[in-house]
Amino acid sequence: MSKHDAVEVITTKRDGQRLSDSQVDWVVDAYTRGEVADEQMSALAMAILLNGMDRAEIARWTAAMIASGERMDFSSLSRPTADKHSTGGVGDKITLPLAPLVAACGVAVPQLSGRGLGHTGGTLDKLESIPGWRAALSNEEMMAQLESVGAVICAAGDGLAPADKKLYALRDVTGTVEAIPLIASSIMSKKIAEGTGALVLDVKVGTGAFMKSVDRARELAETMVALGTDAGVRTVALLTDMSTPLGLTAGNALEVGESVEVLAGGGPADVVELTVALAREMLTAAGVTDVDPADRLADGSAMDAWRAMVAAQGGDPDATLPVAREQHVVTAPADGVLSRLDAMAVGMAAWRLGAGRARKEDPVQAGAGVVWHARPGDAVRAGEPLLTLHTDEPARFERALASLEGGYDVVPAGTEVAVGPIVIDRVG
Amino acid sequence: MSKHDAVEVITTKRDGQRLSDSQVDWVVDAYTRGEVADEQMSALAMAILLNGMDRAEIARWTAAMIASGERMDFSSLSRPTADKHSTGGVGDKITLPLAPLVAACGVAVPQLSGRGLGHTGGTLDKLESIPGWRAALSNEEMMAQLESVGAVICAAGDGLAPADKKLYALRDVTGTVEAIPLIASSIMSKKIAEGTGALVLDVKVGTGAFMKSVDRARELAETMVALGTDAGVRTVALLTDMSTPLGLTAGNALEVGESVEVLAGGGPADVVELTVALAREMLTAAGVTDVDPADRLADGSAMDAWRAMVAAQGGDPDATLPVAREQHVVTAPADGVLSRLDAMAVGMAAWRLGAGRARKEDPVQAGAGVVWHARPGDAVRAGEPLLTLHTDEPARFERALASLEGGYDVVPAGTEVAVGPIVIDRVG
Repeated sequence: MSKHDAVEVITTKRDGQRLSDSQVDWVVDAYTRGEVADEQMSALAMAILLNGMDRAEIARWTAAMIASGERMDFSSLSRPTADKHSTGGVGDKITLPLAPLVAACGVAVPQLSGRGLGHTGGTLDKLESIPGWRAALSNEEMMAQLESVGAVICAAGDGLAPADKKLYALRDVTGTVEAIPLIASSIMSKKIAEGTGALVLDVKVGTGAFMKSVDRARELAETMVALGTDAGVRTVALLTDMSTPLGLTAGNALEVGESVEVLAGGGPADVVELTVALAREMLTAAGVTDVDPADRLADGSAMDAWRAMVAAQGGDPDATLPVAREQHVVTAPADGVLSRLDAMAVGMAAWRLGAGRARKEDPVQAGAGVVWHARPGDAVRAGEPLLTLHTDEPARFERALASLEGGYDVVPAGTEVAVGPIVIDRVG
Repeated sequence: MSKHDAVEVITTKRDGQRLSDSQVDWVVDAYTRGEVADEQMSALAMAILLNGMDRAEIARWTAAMIASGERMDFSSLSRPTADKHSTGGVGDKITLPLAPLVAACGVAVPQLSGRGLGHTGGTLDKLESIPGWRAALSNEEMMAQLESVGAVICAAGDGLAPADKKLYALRDVTGTVEAIPLIASSIMSKKIAEGTGALVLDVKVGTGAFMKSVDRARELAETMVALGTDAGVRTVALLTDMSTPLGLTAGNALEVGESVEVLAGGGPADVVELTVALAREMLTAAGVTDVDPADRLADGSAMDAWRAMVAAQGGDPDATLPVAREQHVVTAPADGVLSRLDAMAVGMAAWRLGAGRARKEDPVQAGAGVVWHARPGDAVRAGEPLLTLHTDEPARFERALASLEGGYDVVPAGTEVAVGPIVIDRVG
């Protein structure tokens, strides 16, 4: 007989009790092996979502997910390592300029990324719009690229935290994505198993983020920082705004283009600001305090690292990026100032234009997405372009336009428009 | 595209909102058809358990489960119909004498019963200890027997509330059995679909019942009475004690034997009292007020109906009942008075002796079970038999004895022992 059974573990959490270490170890392992069925784990996930877990339970759950698979080790590298994780936003292309920027400052970035699901984009989907670029690397290829280039963005192998992969897919279809203990352990099990020395978390807050309130975002950030710190990873978190989408584009090739502008010393101010802020945190956490990342953007060394990183994975950094076959322009309804551009509305529109996927097996369009020609606080003129929608399939415009309805406001010139900071708070 | 999707329904209940009629209809139907997966329904069941449902939601859920299958109709019978449902207890053989007793009073009893799972026994398992008796009847056989004998106890066909069958099996393995909305709708969907004109609910309260407190039992009873009444079934409920097991036996053939004693005019006083109380409620609900069931026990007509009922389903009412191959006697630890005999302890012991099953495909032993030789309030003498355990497999004694540990108390003679009433309250 086994030490525990699924119904006993479920009813413990259902009745508001804490799970013992032994119950957590057993249920995560038994679920990975298939002894605990999907319908049992989903009932447990719902009980965890509604009744919560304390910090020690979350730590044990995370450790059990790490123990379900292999761990990577970068300690043989000649430089320190730092990674970044974002909880997901709209127009969030920050990883693309950030990884080569940090590499150019002397810290290696082993970035295991995912694909997009729903209204938030996926870093791998974006990079795959570069002709020739490939996401799948062996562990040996990853190590060699970290040594030579200093930055790698690739898909996580199947060996890392398999319990999390299985549980994440289950949560997605059972309404249990939004549980802080499960979000925190999902992210941190992969990052700890990945073996990075330092980790900076970009926890998004606002309409376009999973966390709609600063309080919930802070709770998630504090939970993850404690998990990382306890596991020996130097971890800090920034709470950053996701009520407004980042930059001026949402979509795969569109965001690559904008990232290249940032690496070339231009690009939207908010993207530059957040990229540099996260780079400073990564460098500090990795123990490098004598380099200013802003200088490395200015002197072109970040761009050099980008080109080397793309080329090392088969991509052509000079290739023309794909452009969608059809465009539709939305004009400003009046003269005045753009006072609000809603991240969720833009994210849904980009998704419906083909930039994202409804099911994980769906393809994405490289050229699809949304470009906005003003940010909150900017002046607009009646009849001039406010947004441009891009897709290969014009039948998609109608639903995308429906998503954007009520998603922005134009107020009379002279009205004061409050534009909040990008970085709201820091935890760690 | 369908009207709803599973995640939307789950998150509605997860977030504490009520489900719309359209959501309930869709999710029950889609689950029955297999479009909503088990892991989605179990997450929803946990959310219902933790966040509840209001009366209108439960009524709609029940109606949707009824609509998932066929409905029976007894309106062509020459007499009124009444059924009884017990929420499950230890030593609860009441259906066996009750159905023929009510038939002998002129009301037809179409009793669709189940098999036991866990520590509570199943009526069909008990009757199957009678040589030749069979539980499976066609609808036509059932109608003919109701007309000729007036009572039938048989297995529910697969066509009745298939959504409930599927959901019940799922709840059993996902820690979601204890949700009042799901218990109430499960019981009432089958009883309403069965087509009985009147229904008496025996809601058990105490250590050996699913409902441990009178408040929870009353909530369940009120929920079910409202569901039945709204569906046009005259419904009342008795809350009855299940801290002490009923009668003097728990086990299949053992309980048949005790039931026959009751039908012969003898038997334990508590079994007679509860049988007559439930019979009076069934007769009143069916509109028959000029017959006293106690008279029909005394004059032998209930026994005649029992013999006819058993024979009509292939059983031999004169056959010797199976007896377990091995017995083990537990003696009283001291002279005094039995002050407590715990229903759960006795139920677990009977189950472990082989009277019940751990999985629904397991066989049961006809002769296995527990006989107790005293009830709370009775005098006992040190060294004389207090309980006798019956099983075909002596290896089972050890775990059964472990279940009984701490399950009874003997106090010095003269100590006042409070014995509560069998019927605690009436709802309806």
